[in-house]
Amino acid sequence: MADIAFEKDLAVAETGIVGLKVVDLAVHGDSRGWFKENWQRAKMTALGIPDLRVVQNNVSYNDSRGVTRGIHAEPWDKFISVARGSVFGAWVDLREGSETFGKVFTTVLDPSKAIYVPRGVGNSFQALEDGTAYTYLVDAHWSLELKRTYTFVNLADPELNIQWPIPLDQATVSEADLNHPMLRDVVPMAPKRT
Amino acid sequence: MADIAFEKDLAVAETGIVGLKVVDLAVHGDSRGWFKENWQRAKMTALGIPDLRVVQNNVSYNDSRGVTRGIHAEPWDKFISVARGSVFGAWVDLREGSETFGKVFTTVLDPSKAIYVPRGVGNSFQALEDGTAYTYLVDAHWSLELKRTYTFVNLADPELNIQWPIPLDQATVSEADLNHPMLRDVVPMAPKRT
Ligand SMILES: Cc1cn([C@H]2C[C@H](O)[C@@H](COP(=O)(O)OP(=O)(O)O[C@H]3O[C@H](CO)[C@@H](O)[C@H](O)[C@H]3O)O2)c(=O)[nH]c1=O
Ligand SMILES: Cc1cn([C@H]2C[C@H](O)[C@@H](COP(=O)(O)OP(=O)(O)O[C@H]3O[C@H](CO)[C@@H](O)[C@H](O)[C@H]3O)O2)c(=O)[nH]c1=O
Repeated sequence: MADIAFEKDLAVAETGIVGLKVVDLAVHGDSRGWFKENWQRAKMTALGIPDLRVVQNNVSYNDSRGVTRGIHAEPWDKFISVARGSVFGAWVDLREGSETFGKVFTTVLDPSKAIYVPRGVGNSFQALEDGTAYTYLVDAHWSLELKRTYTFVNLADPELNIQWPIPLDQATVSEADLNHPMLRDVVPMAPKRT
Repeated sequence: MADIAFEKDLAVAETGIVGLKVVDLAVHGDSRGWFKENWQRAKMTALGIPDLRVVQNNVSYNDSRGVTRGIHAEPWDKFISVARGSVFGAWVDLREGSETFGKVFTTVLDPSKAIYVPRGVGNSFQALEDGTAYTYLVDAHWSLELKRTYTFVNLADPELNIQWPIPLDQATVSEADLNHPMLRDVVPMAPKRT
């Protein structure tokens, strides 16, 4: 596995997409391996991460380098990180009326880096290592019916111009993810009705 | 990685230690790897898992087979699972006044199996594979000062007689974990003051 930066200070940085925030995590290494607080409500909200009320924790396991998933904007907030391996992540603002609509942010996540993804920001990643375990916390319960309310955009959209480390024609992608619309055809996600 | 049982139904089983519950998770396999709902508040509370108000999510990464951690009883509830690899887990009831005080439960956790560990039940595990990622959710914030309030018991206590798959003299164990008391010298964890 790629080297991880140990003992960073917990820190939050902006990304250019409103509300999308990358997080440096403190990872403590020792002879056994390492330990991290992956989500710590008090410390993280103090640094400006919204107070995610966790009701679901999902894990996706990616057998091989090149597995690519996305781009999915979902109607809930997510806190995403990696428990083993690393990913190249790409996020696209798909929120109706957002001042950064259509904007793309990319970065590599290894176990020492997480990202807070607000509702309506499209999420995708490509595994950079065999056996990459990707884990996220969400503040709403998923159901198959709710998939209708997602907003999708195509991983290969030339307008987004995402520089995938493994070209998509060599990547493992689900049938569903091959067939998402290009950005120009996307219906943006409407704000939450309150 | 060891084979995982896919598409089990979510199910909860008792363990013989009051409040300690093992959970079968539904893991969905496909050409990319697999996906699981690791914690799902609505479905799990409906099956009798207490409603864990998650404020912290921790990950420990275990470089090699044989890394062994424990036995720690902490003053909060935990929901424990594995994102990659597998562990042999051992739990010991260390709660003052518990009808199952001193009782041991052991089982193997792979990504398709989780465990709910109530406050005061001692927790330990041994990684069965190199690169085992162990992840857990808790309902209170950890701090170094709170470590004083843990109750520890020794991994090697002959009275507990835990059959570690890798003998402890070949295991990687922290200095702290080598020095915990035997069960007969343990001060049980007192009930929560309310
Ligand atoms: C999101 C979700 C999915 N599932 C089930 C449905 C399928 O049997 C299986 C995989 O679902 P898919 O829709 O193919 O998941 P995938 O393409 O990986 O995308 C989801 O999971 C990704 C991580 O794998 C996230 O980055 C995406 O935002 C999310 O939409 O898991 C659940 O049981 N619960 C869930 O919450
Ligand atoms: C539990 C905890 C620990 N730490 C820090 C303190 C140390 O620098 C490092 C490792 O802590 P240790 O006390 O050695 O952790 P470890 O022996 O692995 O035991 C803890 O982590 C285990 C999983 O690794 C759990 O099964 C135990 O219940 C828990 O007590 O992480 C945190 O920053 N936050 C925490 O919540």
